Amino acid sequence: MKRSPSRSSKAGTKTHAPAPNTGNSSALDRLKLRWNGWGQTGHPNPLPDGAPQWNLLREALGLTTLPATPAKKLADCVLPLNQLPAAAKHGLEEVVGTDNVHVSDFERAFHARGQSYHDLLHLRAGKLGLAPDAVVYPQSSAQVERVLALCAERNIAVVPFGGGSSVVGGVNAHAKSVGGPIITLDMTAMNNVLKIDKHAMTATIEAGIYGPDLEHQLAKHGVTLSHFPQSFQFSTLGGWIAASGAGQQSNRYGKAGKWLVGAQLVTPQGTWDTEAFPASAAGPNLAQLLCGSEGTLGVITQATVRIHDIPKAKDYRGYLLPDFETGLALARQINHADIPIAMLRLSDPDETAYFQAFSAGLASGLKTALQKLYLRWKRMGDTPCLLLIGLEGDPSTVAWARAQTSSLCRKAGALSLGTSPGKKWYHSRFDSPFARDPMLDRGIGIDTLETAASWPTLLELQGKVRAAILDAITSPAPETSEAQSLQGICMSHLSHSYPDGASLYFTFLFPRDLENDVAQWQKIKRAATDAITSNGGTISHHHGVGTDHAPWMEEEKGAIGMNLLRQLKSELDPKGIMNPEKLIR
Amino acid sequence: MKRSPSRSSKAGTKTHAPAPNTGNSSALDRLKLRWNGWGQTGHPNPLPDGAPQWNLLREALGLTTLPATPAKKLADCVLPLNQLPAAAKHGLEEVVGTDNVHVSDFERAFHARGQSYHDLLHLRAGKLGLAPDAVVYPQSSAQVERVLALCAERNIAVVPFGGGSSVVGGVNAHAKSVGGPIITLDMTAMNNVLKIDKHAMTATIEAGIYGPDLEHQLAKHGVTLSHFPQSFQFSTLGGWIAASGAGQQSNRYGKAGKWLVGAQLVTPQGTWDTEAFPASAAGPNLAQLLCGSEGTLGVITQATVRIHDIPKAKDYRGYLLPDFETGLALARQINHADIPIAMLRLSDPDETAYFQAFSAGLASGLKTALQKLYLRWKRMGDTPCLLLIGLEGDPSTVAWARAQTSSLCRKAGALSLGTSPGKKWYHSRFDSPFARDPMLDRGIGIDTLETAASWPTLLELQGKVRAAILDAITSPAPETSEAQSLQGICMSHLSHSYPDGASLYFTFLFPRDLENDVAQWQKIKRAATDAITSNGGTISHHHGVGTDHAPWMEEEKGAIGMNLLRQLKSELDPKGIMNPEKLIR
Repeated sequence: MKRSPSRSSKAGTKTHAPAPNTGNSSALDRLKLRWNGWGQTGHPNPLPDGAPQWNLLREALGLTTLPATPAKKLADCVLPLNQLPAAAKHGLEEVVGTDNVHVSDFERAFHARGQSYHDLLHLRAGKLGLAPDAVVYPQSSAQVERVLALCAERNIAVVPFGGGSSVVGGVNAHAKSVGGPIITLDMTAMNNVLKIDKHAMTATIEAGIYGPDLEHQLAKHGVTLSHFPQSFQFSTLGGWIAASGAGQQSNRYGKAGKWLVGAQLVTPQGTWDTEAFPASAAGPNLAQLLCGSEGTLGVITQATVRIHDIPKAKDYRGYLLPDFETGLALARQINHADIPIAMLRLSDPDETAYFQAFSAGLASGLKTALQKLYLRWKRMGDTPCLLLIGLEGDPSTVAWARAQTSSLCRKAGALSLGTSPGKKWYHSRFDSPFARDPMLDRGIGIDTLETAASWPTLLELQGKVRAAILDAITSPAPETSEAQSLQGICMSHLSHSYPDGASLYFTFLFPRDLENDVAQWQKIKRAATDAITSNGGTISHHHGVGTDHAPWMEEEKGAIGMNLLRQLKSELDPKGIMNPEKLIR
Repeated sequence: MKRSPSRSSKAGTKTHAPAPNTGNSSALDRLKLRWNGWGQTGHPNPLPDGAPQWNLLREALGLTTLPATPAKKLADCVLPLNQLPAAAKHGLEEVVGTDNVHVSDFERAFHARGQSYHDLLHLRAGKLGLAPDAVVYPQSSAQVERVLALCAERNIAVVPFGGGSSVVGGVNAHAKSVGGPIITLDMTAMNNVLKIDKHAMTATIEAGIYGPDLEHQLAKHGVTLSHFPQSFQFSTLGGWIAASGAGQQSNRYGKAGKWLVGAQLVTPQGTWDTEAFPASAAGPNLAQLLCGSEGTLGVITQATVRIHDIPKAKDYRGYLLPDFETGLALARQINHADIPIAMLRLSDPDETAYFQAFSAGLASGLKTALQKLYLRWKRMGDTPCLLLIGLEGDPSTVAWARAQTSSLCRKAGALSLGTSPGKKWYHSRFDSPFARDPMLDRGIGIDTLETAASWPTLLELQGKVRAAILDAITSPAPETSEAQSLQGICMSHLSHSYPDGASLYFTFLFPRDLENDVAQWQKIKRAATDAITSNGGTISHHHGVGTDHAPWMEEEKGAIGMNLLRQLKSELDPKGIMNPEKLIR
């Protein structure tokens, strides 16, 4: 058993952790992050004026011009009156130290909402009605326990917050009642790797650690968790568990529930260390209840997770299939053949076409390998679909898996594209979210949503959801008197697969209805989610529920299931202060 | 999507299911089963008088003679007065039909207890104080719902019962209060395969189906669940889920929680169909709460499970390791190397020696392959350990896995024994429980218990538990005035393994203290379980909790965890009629 030498394994007895925003090398400096968009303020704009993609987007959306629709500056916004009583603020400062309770406009605005399109519409318009009254950065589990006790006593709502990357309203600062006080508990100062055990291949890690810091700490010992969601750079271990997240290589490393061994949950009723065994038949596995709990039951302060040796070999490559149905059948076959793949990603014809067009555009006229391939793609017919297969592990395992997958691909009539599409995807796998803010600046709306269902339902589900999204984009809004017809783009892919089914992920772009942008989004969201639930899909594969999916929860869980969730919450959080309005209503 | 042609997919609308005990070809005929032992009455005795194993056992236990200690006949036993009011019995008959409510001595005795050593001590002594007042065989989920409503109204305790193979007191007929009425709900008439979906590779099956019937129905479609616990022949799908069971090939097919997609739970509050997706982030996966629920939350009436193509290739073979520690290190390596094994079983030196000796004895003097190997084993030193590795799947997968495992075994200094030990184990893998009854008839006590823990703790845990068991066997019982010193045998093996740890399974034999046999067992059980919990092990890997492990539950789950379980129960079973005294106290 190894421990990182300078750190105690007991979070509660940890003597010091660097305060946030004061040069902590591992937690991200809040002041360098965008409060109303993705990533650092200084991140290069992937879509500068004049980039060839703008014309492509404009034409695809049937627009003659792209309006300038910049976001409001924080200095021009008005934050709601602070509802936190001075005595409560003083009490919080006594627990975590005065340096770790923040009430600045920036901290309140940064923690007001997550990163959904819906959130960005509010933030960019300066609608900061949901901002927390204070942001508290606890340094230990013991501090979290004292903060929750104080908040329960004073009926103050608490929003646990990791990276704040929720795209379903999961960290929005809803008070317990209108006008009631609310704090956000920013967990990113709790970012220590407490223990690495290379025999058990587990690590115990504080929940507020960001993805890159976590992997950096583990890499020093030659190991990895390899949970790489698209939000990897700006999300935390605790958030991954709380939202039941999935990394892009989930075939190999699993969703959060698979790599979670046990966790510590601090609740208003006290601190609970769950079971943490390789397997057990001693009643239901209660640690699994934390996966998808979304801060409504308490705060995940640390977790023991299954780790792996850093894979010695990686092989990511592309294939082209003549249509989505053929691709789905192949994906199913690969999953049923017990081949140790790390990732399988199948794009529908629209996504395949845009992937190619955007790539070509980005290459600025160069004859890229992808462009050359385009000529060969045309042989595939009108609806070619890109399949990416990623393999990771020991060289012998990767070689064997490659032989197995190649053989199945060949039998399915796939055209091998070699490793360049795989490498291209791999190197840009965290980039998409950075393109959203510039699009929003130019009148273009873009959102994503996802589901999972069993193999036999996927093709119809994909068609129905796509149709529902496009129909909701193009049909005139009821609020609009004049007949308005907008043109949208909807792309989809399968990106997480299992023996019994797979996830589907939809990306859709549309001209923003600037007068009614929230209503426009709500209409699309409602149409898509109704299409998902009525065609055998879950309301979320890895985004979670938050506020956005909560209206569909009872349909999915059943009345009895929802009562169970309510009972769990009322046991751990009898006053209902934990993350109000999320998951359970 | 395929369905078995003559059956509806809705259990509630099923028009007819054969009544039990009247020639139902698939459910086992209760009257042909032993009410106080394992299996059918007519099963051949594996240890007849004069079998060479008797001398081996006698010597190992330090006895000069083996006493005759036969079980009491049912005709000589007195069943407790029936507490079920006539109106309640009439009400039950109205729901399930008069043929499906049984109050005979045989049915009451058969359903009094499970199959633990502790249970057998009571049954064989004719101590039938826990017998249910009636045994009800529901034919549909709708009937189960009506039975539970009736029992809740009348405060009648209900014990859900599948095969009754619990070895932890999980089906014992504890009434809600002393002298209160109690029924056992025997689920084995609900044994239909409702749907097989070969695209999703899932099947929806009624929970009362026995293992062999389930595999027989699936095999007609070329598929298998491959959940093969040692109790396979006499246990049911619902029991496997309720006790969070593990089949012998759990490395490939997983514990119940891994193959469970969704289930139907009938509770006193109504019927609940859980989520059933390949994966979801819509809150915690509530279907997983049924794994390990042990009938305390309701009755599992049907389940959708992940199935597989019947494997085209199987390879089971043996290796010899110089000691247990080397074997553990090798087992860990194999688990970390991502090799698709189906089973890995490592015996400690004692089990290895007895396996060899018993096999030699059974071969009645013939020079078996194992005997020949014995000479080579001796080269391994004084503490050789047998390792069995089982591979299943496509021929190419099996061949690849065999090459990988062989290479690791060679590097670890293992001596290859070829396929004969593997075949021998495979063909006798359900046989051990049949040897227990003849041993009990000759004054020999035999019991098993198991745990799981992380790799770094396993070696010490194995030593501590073994020592605790042997010490509890050999030290004089406090009730005994004279200094009595008994000699015991304790063997153990690792039989389920994971990246982060493995299970350990202990089998121990001892001369029965005929005057104090229950106290003798309790002393051993307490010592072993204390050693498990104080050395990092779970109180059960796959046997469950029942009544026997319930005293250790709070230590394992934590006070907050136990409160969660109690809340779940009180929501679904507010009157506390479901399987009293089990799991949650």
